[in-house]
Amino acid sequence: MALASLAIRWHDTALDLLDQRALPADTIWLRITNAREAAHAIREMVVRGAPAIGITAGYGLALEAQRLGDQASLAALAPAFEVLAESRPTAVNLFWALDRMREAAGDLSGAALARHLSEQAERLHRDDLAANRRLGEAGLSLLPPEARVYTHCNTGALATGGHGTALGIIRSAWEAGQLRSVYAGETRPWLQGARLTSWELMQDGIPVTLVADSCAAMLMAQGEVDVVIVGADRIAANGDTANKIGTYSLAVLARHHGIPFIVAAPDSTLDAAMQDGSGIVIEQRPAEEVRQVAGRPCAPADCPVYNPAFDVTPAALISAIVTENGVIPSPDPTAMAAYFARSAS
Amino acid sequence: MALASLAIRWHDTALDLLDQRALPADTIWLRITNAREAAHAIREMVVRGAPAIGITAGYGLALEAQRLGDQASLAALAPAFEVLAESRPTAVNLFWALDRMREAAGDLSGAALARHLSEQAERLHRDDLAANRRLGEAGLSLLPPEARVYTHCNTGALATGGHGTALGIIRSAWEAGQLRSVYAGETRPWLQGARLTSWELMQDGIPVTLVADSCAAMLMAQGEVDVVIVGADRIAANGDTANKIGTYSLAVLARHHGIPFIVAAPDSTLDAAMQDGSGIVIEQRPAEEVRQVAGRPCAPADCPVYNPAFDVTPAALISAIVTENGVIPSPDPTAMAAYFARSAS
Repeated sequence: MALASLAIRWHDTALDLLDQRALPADTIWLRITNAREAAHAIREMVVRGAPAIGITAGYGLALEAQRLGDQASLAALAPAFEVLAESRPTAVNLFWALDRMREAAGDLSGAALARHLSEQAERLHRDDLAANRRLGEAGLSLLPPEARVYTHCNTGALATGGHGTALGIIRSAWEAGQLRSVYAGETRPWLQGARLTSWELMQDGIPVTLVADSCAAMLMAQGEVDVVIVGADRIAANGDTANKIGTYSLAVLARHHGIPFIVAAPDSTLDAAMQDGSGIVIEQRPAEEVRQVAGRPCAPADCPVYNPAFDVTPAALISAIVTENGVIPSPDPTAMAAYFARSAS
Repeated sequence: MALASLAIRWHDTALDLLDQRALPADTIWLRITNAREAAHAIREMVVRGAPAIGITAGYGLALEAQRLGDQASLAALAPAFEVLAESRPTAVNLFWALDRMREAAGDLSGAALARHLSEQAERLHRDDLAANRRLGEAGLSLLPPEARVYTHCNTGALATGGHGTALGIIRSAWEAGQLRSVYAGETRPWLQGARLTSWELMQDGIPVTLVADSCAAMLMAQGEVDVVIVGADRIAANGDTANKIGTYSLAVLARHHGIPFIVAAPDSTLDAAMQDGSGIVIEQRPAEEVRQVAGRPCAPADCPVYNPAFDVTPAALISAIVTENGVIPSPDPTAMAAYFARSAS
């Protein structure tokens, strides 16, 4: 059946992806008809966000099986699995999605395999959307009425199967009449807040105000922010959270102003094997991201730059972590262990 | 006599201004030969920074008196005073400089007037440079050996008669062998840190690393920052300090990490008539500065924006204020009153 979210439209025999590189200036949909095109879209950042990448890979395999027709089999699909695995080698969620597609394929072949893979890809898409909706609902208990929320980067429908994580709580609050407005930090150097979050919220008619990242502290001091909600790249066993650069800064500022600081992330982001945040390797990004803006130089060409992709927020600064399985209040080793035990049971 | 600083070169019969709009991509000098051209350069942001604007206006009047030759008199210069006063109506320092030029003119005329105005303009230039050097020296006592400094916006030789204020302390520390390195925050939305501070420090061979503003907290947590030094737009009688947006954020982050937070500003920035920071009106800047970067859209064209030009840092978060008259440690109403009494005596 056809299935559509903000950035991913499945038409049973083709996939349309919203080209996020062109946002917000242009709304361009790219048609994907096989695995190679899906891999290309992932590699070229047409689609971004771990869940959205996994879903795209799933649809890419389903389309490839359709293309192979009578020849379709797990063996015949091996090159498709390979090209997709190579499209974003660091994305854990991508490999998880490919594994689920492989399991679904089993020893089916031909039209039955194609049908089964389509159903499995749709399931990945629907399950992610449903998980985000549960996460969003779970977060509502942490928000005051008429909440004014500050958020960072883009953790929305564009990055997931729909609804979003941090933006999922914001969307659920809006639907429940519990949200007054959102401040979106522009999120230098990539400007995901400016380019994506503001666009996405405006699509849904949610009141959003865009600010420079360095403006957050002043807004907090003026009493304009009731709660900060951010996403997570990876959460260690003690609750330490790696997320987009600038997240730790917001956590310190929120603590100084007595404002709750909430992390929203799918359960798959929690890494029980990682003891604490000190073990998380910080990816260094190219200097050009800071020396240039939108492809234009804004600093000396040879100026040294420090450009970490993310920072680590200690659990002690986090008021609550929210997943699709519920809320972990005041995350510390004990609270986190209780969550892991509950999820495993 | 000829007198040159980083952005202002006086050649006795002409003035060359470094076009700061073109930095760091291009180093373009614009020749100024009369008051109208000087006013144009101020209005069009060829030159920026309160002290640099005042000095430019002074040289503009001197050139105008030369142009008038035998006809030069205070009355004949009235249109020149007027066009310069209108070039940046909110710049207090500009009017202070025009007043000093008017006093110097007295009832002189012709070549004697032209010579006297040249000397007075050079005095403004030299005095500002000397004040910045005294300020820089005064700040050294606050720095550890091998200091690693974080700074914000541009408060350097480009904005003054030379040396700079916050960058003046950094320059003095470099000359004294007391500086290891500088982190420059890019300072969205205008990117003065990326465009100007990094360029200016590189000109002097001072080791600088450019970062996104939201990276400061992580650097502090990693122990990479020994001290934060910023400038000031205006300092109230109790020590509350208005400065470029993002300054307050750095003050909160510095406090959280136990790092000294120093404000460097000329004495003329201290406003004894302003009781505290709550009375300082926050200028709101155009939304386009956040929605665009370097003239290119990076957010939806109709996205609401909050874009205050500066924020106010409460005195309690400031470790010390440094002027050309010395250091005010732990500024509070008592320490500030003592400084005002000392300066007035």
